[in-house]
Amino acid sequence: MSIRHVTLVGAGVLGAQIAFQTAFKDFDVSAYVPDQAALDKAGKVIGWLQRRYLQDIDGADPQALAAAAGRIRWTTDLAAAVKDADLVIEAIPEQLELKRRVYAELGRLAPAKAIFATNSSTLLPSAMADATGRPERFIALHFANEIWLHNVAEVMGHAGTDPEVFSTLVRFANDIGMVPVEIHKEKAGYVLNSLLVPLMSAASELLVDGIAEHEAIDRTWKIATGSPRGPFEIYDIVGLGTAYHVSLAGGPKQQAFARLIKERYIDHGKLGVETGEGFYRYES
Amino acid sequence: MSIRHVTLVGAGVLGAQIAFQTAFKDFDVSAYVPDQAALDKAGKVIGWLQRRYLQDIDGADPQALAAAAGRIRWTTDLAAAVKDADLVIEAIPEQLELKRRVYAELGRLAPAKAIFATNSSTLLPSAMADATGRPERFIALHFANEIWLHNVAEVMGHAGTDPEVFSTLVRFANDIGMVPVEIHKEKAGYVLNSLLVPLMSAASELLVDGIAEHEAIDRTWKIATGSPRGPFEIYDIVGLGTAYHVSLAGGPKQQAFARLIKERYIDHGKLGVETGEGFYRYES
Repeated sequence: MSIRHVTLVGAGVLGAQIAFQTAFKDFDVSAYVPDQAALDKAGKVIGWLQRRYLQDIDGADPQALAAAAGRIRWTTDLAAAVKDADLVIEAIPEQLELKRRVYAELGRLAPAKAIFATNSSTLLPSAMADATGRPERFIALHFANEIWLHNVAEVMGHAGTDPEVFSTLVRFANDIGMVPVEIHKEKAGYVLNSLLVPLMSAASELLVDGIAEHEAIDRTWKIATGSPRGPFEIYDIVGLGTAYHVSLAGGPKQQAFARLIKERYIDHGKLGVETGEGFYRYES
Repeated sequence: MSIRHVTLVGAGVLGAQIAFQTAFKDFDVSAYVPDQAALDKAGKVIGWLQRRYLQDIDGADPQALAAAAGRIRWTTDLAAAVKDADLVIEAIPEQLELKRRVYAELGRLAPAKAIFATNSSTLLPSAMADATGRPERFIALHFANEIWLHNVAEVMGHAGTDPEVFSTLVRFANDIGMVPVEIHKEKAGYVLNSLLVPLMSAASELLVDGIAEHEAIDRTWKIATGSPRGPFEIYDIVGLGTAYHVSLAGGPKQQAFARLIKERYIDHGKLGVETGEGFYRYES
C-alpha cells in the first residue's frame, strides 16, 4: 500500500494543520470543507500556519511554505475531494452519529484503495469502522495540537484493522515528519490522554480540596519535573469550556471542579488562552 | 521566630543536599550522622555536590563552594548536633517507629526554640508531631532530589502547627534558594507526588496492558508536553527497587507492574540509573 494522495475531511484547527503539514511534506493533498464560511476560515488558518512555521522552524523557507499552501486543493464537494484518495483523514467534530454518517458517505464515494483514518480524541475506531463498509481499512491517526512542534502521531487500529494498513500508517506518519507511536491495542485516550487525564484530574482535585493554589501546583510541577507547563496552564490551552464539559461527566470531585471553573472563570467570559484569560492572563 | 542555626539529622542523598545548600546560603549548619561509615559516605557526597554545583550553576565559585562544605559541622553526637538548633530538619529512613524514636530524643535534646521539620515523602506530620512533645512546632519541609536544580520546597503543617512556624518555614525555604510551595492542609504525597503518582501509575498500566512499549510512552509524553523526561525515565531515576515496593502495595495492575519490573530488570541487577541500566541504559 502506498500513500500519495491524502484527503482531509474537516479543516478546523487541527485538520488544517494536518493538511498543511502533509502538503509541506510533498504529498498531494485535497481538503473538504462543508461551505464557503469554513473555506474562508481555513484560508486564514493556513496563512497563520505559514507565519508560525517561519517563526518556529529553523531555516523554514517562505516560498516553500507558500507553495505548500498553494498545493492544497480545497473543495466543498466531498466526491471530488476523495476521488483519488489513498488516505482519507477525518477531523470533524467529536459526535459519533455525525462521524458515522460521514463515514458511510465516504465508503460510497472513496476508491477501493482508500484507507480511512480518524483523528478522533475521544471515540474508538471500533465504534466507527463498520460505517465505511471496509472496517479492515479503518484506523485512528491521532495528532497533538501544533503538530509542527509536538510532532507525535498515535497510530491505533481496532481488532479488525489490516496489519498492512497499520504499518502503512506508521510509515506515512513518519513521512510527514511525525514521530509515530504504535499502539498495539484499542485504548480510549490513546497513550497521550491516558497519561494526561490522570495528571489533570489530580491537579484539579488538589485545587478543589483546598490543598494548594493553582499557581503553587503549576510551579511545583514545572520546577520539580522540568516540564514547560503546569496542569492549569494546560487547562487554559485546552480551554475551560472543554474542561467544564469533560469534568462534569466525571466523579464528585471532578464535578466540583466543573462548578469551580464555571463560577470563577466561564461565567465571566474567561475561557483560557482563546479569550486572553482563564487561570492566568495572556497577552493577545 | 528567626532561623540561624540549622541541624540536619540524617545525611543520606537528600539530607546531604539540604545541609550543603543551607550552608551555601550562609546558614550555620550542623549535621548528625549515626557513625563513622555514614560520615565517610557523607564526605564523598559533599565532594560530589561541589562538582555538580560547579557544573550546573552559572558562575558558581569553587572557593565559595569549598567554604560552604567547610562550614558544615559534622558529628555523631546528637546532643551536640542540636544544641543550638533553631531548626532541625530530619531526613532519616521512612520508618515511622524509627522517626518517632528519633523525634522523642530530639524533643529531649533540642532547645525550646527549635522547630522540627521532616523531609518525609510518605508519612504525614500528624503521625509524628506528638513524639517531639511540641507538636505546634512540628511541620513538613519536603524537597525534591537535586535541590539546586529542582528548587521547590513543599511546606505543610498538620492541624496543630503554629501558623508562625509555617510562615517561618516559608521564609526559610525562600532564604535557602528554594521556591516555597504553601500547602494549606495535610495531604499524603504533598502536591508533587499527588500529581506524579497518578501519571506514573497510568504509564505503568499502559505497559502492563500491552498498549504500547515504554519507549513509545515516554516519547509521546515528551514530544506532546515538552517535558524533559518520560514516566519510565523517571522510574529509572527513582530506582526500580523503590518502584517495585511501592507498586506491590497497589492494586492488581500495579502489582502486575511490580512483577514485570522484577522479572525483566531487578532480577538481572538492573535497578535504574544507579546501576547503569533499568528501562534504559546509562553511561556511567
